Amino acid sequence: MKRPKILITNDDGINAPGLRFLIGVMRELGDLVIIAPDKPQSGMAHAVTIQTPLRIHEVTNEPGYQEYSCNGTPVDCVKLGQKVIMKCNPDLIVSGINHGSNSSINVLYSGTMAAVIEGAMEDIPAIGFSLNDYSYHADFRHCAPYIITIASNVLAHGLSPGVCLNVNFPEQNGSAINGIKVVRQAKAVWDESFDERTDPRKRNYYWLHGEFVCTDISEDTDQWAIKNNFVSIVPVSIDLTAYHAIDDLKKWDLDGLSN
Amino acid sequence: MKRPKILITNDDGINAPGLRFLIGVMRELGDLVIIAPDKPQSGMAHAVTIQTPLRIHEVTNEPGYQEYSCNGTPVDCVKLGQKVIMKCNPDLIVSGINHGSNSSINVLYSGTMAAVIEGAMEDIPAIGFSLNDYSYHADFRHCAPYIITIASNVLAHGLSPGVCLNVNFPEQNGSAINGIKVVRQAKAVWDESFDERTDPRKRNYYWLHGEFVCTDISEDTDQWAIKNNFVSIVPVSIDLTAYHAIDDLKKWDLDGLSN
Repeated sequence: MKRPKILITNDDGINAPGLRFLIGVMRELGDLVIIAPDKPQSGMAHAVTIQTPLRIHEVTNEPGYQEYSCNGTPVDCVKLGQKVIMKCNPDLIVSGINHGSNSSINVLYSGTMAAVIEGAMEDIPAIGFSLNDYSYHADFRHCAPYIITIASNVLAHGLSPGVCLNVNFPEQNGSAINGIKVVRQAKAVWDESFDERTDPRKRNYYWLHGEFVCTDISEDTDQWAIKNNFVSIVPVSIDLTAYHAIDDLKKWDLDGLSN
Repeated sequence: MKRPKILITNDDGINAPGLRFLIGVMRELGDLVIIAPDKPQSGMAHAVTIQTPLRIHEVTNEPGYQEYSCNGTPVDCVKLGQKVIMKCNPDLIVSGINHGSNSSINVLYSGTMAAVIEGAMEDIPAIGFSLNDYSYHADFRHCAPYIITIASNVLAHGLSPGVCLNVNFPEQNGSAINGIKVVRQAKAVWDESFDERTDPRKRNYYWLHGEFVCTDISEDTDQWAIKNNFVSIVPVSIDLTAYHAIDDLKKWDLDGLSN
């Protein structure tokens, strides 16, 4: 049986321990092409590089294992991996393991998840993995069996067109993980502010900082799952239409101008 | 009656004619705070700046009209406008007018729409305006009455929580616009490739280019509306959960590991 071709990327950069761990796990499942940003690209969301040229650096090129870094974003990595390196569609795209959760609305800011959403846009099965622990030396070992199970299922069953998976792991807390929950994205907000500082030339500058606030206490969410030591899987759609709002809008007075 | 406070941004940058036109139109409706990127930020999607400090440059500060440029992304502009400049929530956020359509899956790449989605994340009514014409000197005049109508309706009715509007205008083609259609995001793909070139130092570099391919011929889409000389309105959700896929995933064999 032919081994599946798996494209791997992330947004924390080619040297991030979360990526190195994911590579180790995925070697069991298929032939790998890794192409990841040469520097951290957290918070880059679905950005693509169109103003500056993209460059690729070859790290390793062996049968069944190719590794590259690139000066672009996670989405650039997926496009370059597919079009320039592989010259075909991979059987699976995996991204991560992100250092930090991408649950709830964080899916919209995440470069890790953007790489995966890019896969869904091309109908390539794709999974983003994130750990609810921001530290550089986080313990990823408890994630391994779940990564194998979820990726094997995606390889076996595929995913619906335009759908990818957002998988979040609870941090290592000394207890075994309770299992897997298929859930929805929790409602939450970032309560943010800016740190205002003055540089030596007396000019002001700002750093964004904030606190994640989730008031959605329902048990069918990714936030609930992670907090209760479950692995969360949210199927994510590339169709952003708010279908429930269409009828309301049609009732508006768009007279004269509308028909 | 108090005039509404309106925050305006875009992704083509503070000097883009589409932004200048939108400012002119919105002056009729309220007091304006403009904060826009100091350089083009197309394709930056929902990126936020966390690795480098943010700076704001004051252009104009008059009663009812404040204008600033910023070295960040469109989403940074919304956050800075709200937290640093206004120190309160605006009554409305508008973004654009983008030089080029943001219909269909382009909503996922667009900085213009990311600014608007950021508004929805904070439950601030928000509208992105885009014109199906990429040229710098595009004719925006036919958009004006529709901008007034749509923005007035949003100010009057508000929007459902977590929902914002993606409005696309057909290009000026000599005929009057046929009206407004409330529609869904069309299914489409970018058929992309990379232009490979060699620099004077013999190193390869790549430029992304591609063609937008829409095979979704149904009449309830934004693509159909624009092609048929209608203004399209798609309500956009910040909840990316693919609810229709949840039951399928629950049937998977996640045995042993799941519960």
